[in-house]
Amino acid sequence: MASNNLDFMFYPKSLAVVGASSNPASFGCDFMTHVTSYGYKGKIYPINPKQSEMFGLKAYPDLLSVPENIDYVISLIGVNNVPALLSQCAKKGVKGVHILAGRGAETGRADAIQLEADIIKAARDYGIRLLGPNCLGVFCPETGLAFGYDFPREPGCVGGVIQSGGNSTDLMHIGALRGLRFSKVVSYGNALDINQNDLFEYFLNDSKTKVVVSYIEGLKGDSREFLKLLRQVTAKKPVIILKGGRTNAGAKLTVSHTASLAGSGKIWDIAVRQAGAIPVRNLDEMINMAVAFSMLPPIKGKRVGIAGCGGGRSILSVDAWADEGFDIPALPEEIRQELKNRGSQIWDWIGNPADASITIPGDAYSMTSITAEMAKNPAFDFIATDAQEDPPFGKDRFVQELTENIQGFIKARKENEKPLLVVYDERSVGITEAESWNYQTRAKLRTLLVNEKVPFFPSTDEAARAVNELIAYYQRREESSRM
Amino acid sequence: MASNNLDFMFYPKSLAVVGASSNPASFGCDFMTHVTSYGYKGKIYPINPKQSEMFGLKAYPDLLSVPENIDYVISLIGVNNVPALLSQCAKKGVKGVHILAGRGAETGRADAIQLEADIIKAARDYGIRLLGPNCLGVFCPETGLAFGYDFPREPGCVGGVIQSGGNSTDLMHIGALRGLRFSKVVSYGNALDINQNDLFEYFLNDSKTKVVVSYIEGLKGDSREFLKLLRQVTAKKPVIILKGGRTNAGAKLTVSHTASLAGSGKIWDIAVRQAGAIPVRNLDEMINMAVAFSMLPPIKGKRVGIAGCGGGRSILSVDAWADEGFDIPALPEEIRQELKNRGSQIWDWIGNPADASITIPGDAYSMTSITAEMAKNPAFDFIATDAQEDPPFGKDRFVQELTENIQGFIKARKENEKPLLVVYDERSVGITEAESWNYQTRAKLRTLLVNEKVPFFPSTDEAARAVNELIAYYQRREESSRM
Repeated sequence: MASNNLDFMFYPKSLAVVGASSNPASFGCDFMTHVTSYGYKGKIYPINPKQSEMFGLKAYPDLLSVPENIDYVISLIGVNNVPALLSQCAKKGVKGVHILAGRGAETGRADAIQLEADIIKAARDYGIRLLGPNCLGVFCPETGLAFGYDFPREPGCVGGVIQSGGNSTDLMHIGALRGLRFSKVVSYGNALDINQNDLFEYFLNDSKTKVVVSYIEGLKGDSREFLKLLRQVTAKKPVIILKGGRTNAGAKLTVSHTASLAGSGKIWDIAVRQAGAIPVRNLDEMINMAVAFSMLPPIKGKRVGIAGCGGGRSILSVDAWADEGFDIPALPEEIRQELKNRGSQIWDWIGNPADASITIPGDAYSMTSITAEMAKNPAFDFIATDAQEDPPFGKDRFVQELTENIQGFIKARKENEKPLLVVYDERSVGITEAESWNYQTRAKLRTLLVNEKVPFFPSTDEAARAVNELIAYYQRREESSRM
Repeated sequence: MASNNLDFMFYPKSLAVVGASSNPASFGCDFMTHVTSYGYKGKIYPINPKQSEMFGLKAYPDLLSVPENIDYVISLIGVNNVPALLSQCAKKGVKGVHILAGRGAETGRADAIQLEADIIKAARDYGIRLLGPNCLGVFCPETGLAFGYDFPREPGCVGGVIQSGGNSTDLMHIGALRGLRFSKVVSYGNALDINQNDLFEYFLNDSKTKVVVSYIEGLKGDSREFLKLLRQVTAKKPVIILKGGRTNAGAKLTVSHTASLAGSGKIWDIAVRQAGAIPVRNLDEMINMAVAFSMLPPIKGKRVGIAGCGGGRSILSVDAWADEGFDIPALPEEIRQELKNRGSQIWDWIGNPADASITIPGDAYSMTSITAEMAKNPAFDFIATDAQEDPPFGKDRFVQELTENIQGFIKARKENEKPLLVVYDERSVGITEAESWNYQTRAKLRTLLVNEKVPFFPSTDEAARAVNELIAYYQRREESSRM
């Protein structure tokens, strides 16, 4: 095997896009857009026999015409043409090639399987690493590499090992709406060469990556090595794994998607758990876990202070936390006394959850004051806030109250060490609602939460499940370190 | 007990708003806005001793000054003033009074409990029905009554028996974004008089209501009668019930919210199931079930045809359907042959799920053609579609493909009897993303789905759970009818 150092594909000094094009209906144009628009600082060589210039760059008819050596090649050409490309790559000092093309082994055809065998043999002979085929490649905001539109540009700490291109795109788009930011995400497809083991080994030692998320349809390479690596990574950083093809019906499909044998979902879950990773069932759960692990500090216990919601929603919130085994302690008397001393008229009515609907304008009891008190008080291990219930007020009071409540939560989080999360409903709108003051306000406050890097969850259920995994992960790590 | 006919509060010929006001920071102004803006056609009498005119209407200092009799009174005044109001109501032929005010029995104070006792005694003596106290009242789009801003104006078939005002507002707002439309929703609070039994009995015979959703913190009145009524209603129409205070921690709170004793969640679930209703755990589940029951026809079996998604997402979709016990049959050969005959280049590559990412522009295989074929074919009991995965294309192709796919699903649904649903991600945006072509396109298509009355779900998981309950409900009804 070649060296495991995959820096050539995250930090290439130069790259060529083979099959680059200015035709907007082509992947060649998409990838040229990405390498030129995300801030990539290295040299870019578009390769196209029919165009001499595109995107303001000189284009070359083939790789050999490029005057200098090239670190990394993004290949958008048909898989049949890859062997010829590789021999050119060998002459240009290329360290790695990303092969976008599908229709390889996943078709199940003998000639395609033989072609993949020829490709991997050539690559090994030349000492060139391959990413793919049948994958979208590398997202690395730090260096300005991306494979889709509107990925979050700000680098973050979440690394991704994602076998499916569509799922990796969804991860970036949906994750971005939740404030997730990424170090490096790799869509790795059929994994003819670089597989999940190489990528986990890379992330084990990548200081930019604090949390790893992974979507795997079937393990490629050495499965025991994978579990060993997984244990090593989870000892240092949390790993969240989504298995595609957990069920018999799903497993049948993985062969035709990424030529993967899926194996049994139950055995997988047990093995993954034993290795200290967190198995999830779908992309939403993966994103919830990634939000919890990348945006919350470790949480030490299960005592939750709840602020926000009206009456009915508070009760449902308590039910949801209790379902997941959390404690909802009574509000400490000293908090009530403190608010009484500050002149609250309803100091004796305040509890945990602290109800947002009983506030009186001007009273010392507000979501800002109660959240601050809860965040300071040792009775709570963490604070869960929720101010998304629709109050029955008109525009002015609605906008003012929702804004003040969210700002109060953000303030309490800034001024205290205590972990704090927000429950913020998903309320996707149609085009007819998009302009309403209600949804404009929610959208503005959502952006505020993202900008302030406050973790938020679509429901209390989902927050509670994620916090449970967070607590358990850090407990396991502490127990292991004591042994 | 007074007559159960509650038509007076859904179809009042005249109403008075006691505590009406033009001060925008008051409930008096909110309710005047609602009764004047939702199209209520009856006579409206604002009552306010300090204003002689508001909202273009003559206002009266008190109820007795109104020249005619009044059907229905919305009381926004403090609960202490309600006894005096009731004696005026008796003189004006009032049939029912909605009491908004809280701070009654739920405070646990002896004087408040005595006051409620006095109020109910007076109401019974006068033959006046009471809604509340501590509730937001009646939403009836058919007659133009509402208690919140931006409720859906188009009448529908979902009736609601909701003990919490905030939860009922959330139901209307979030439900509207999913295409739910309502017949009558009642926020009924402390249920001093009109309780869940009266409301279920009303919905049993209300021809406008085809599906009943309910949020109950604690039963008021006769619990056996409730279960008997529930069996009667579920024999005619599906009932979805969310229990507030299922857990011990949650049950402690219901007393202080609506003065309700919550009882045990597990016993509740069993009793509700035995009565043929569907217990749910939170508002999201309630809305998913309401979408399934109000927007899908009965589904007879578990064989699902899946169209849409790319490779990875198809696999996760299959896993999610299989987890819930659904069958994903192989694509019938005649469908492949049909597409071959029409000239498809990839006829032998098509399966179930029908992958949207392998389509070739101009080929006979498209989401429109495959969904139409699946919808016609007896191999499937229903069709689940999903076209929300982010394709890696730029604007023009993205917009075109997503639009064509959704239009294809809508067409297949229109032209066939077969039940069809759509999985349509929740992707709430911040204000920074709201203007992007990606989310503008999704918002436009979401509105199209709502306008075409196509049921959609935020995830395959949630769709599968809802369809399972739908199948089971109609099976139970059929079995009971055979006995």
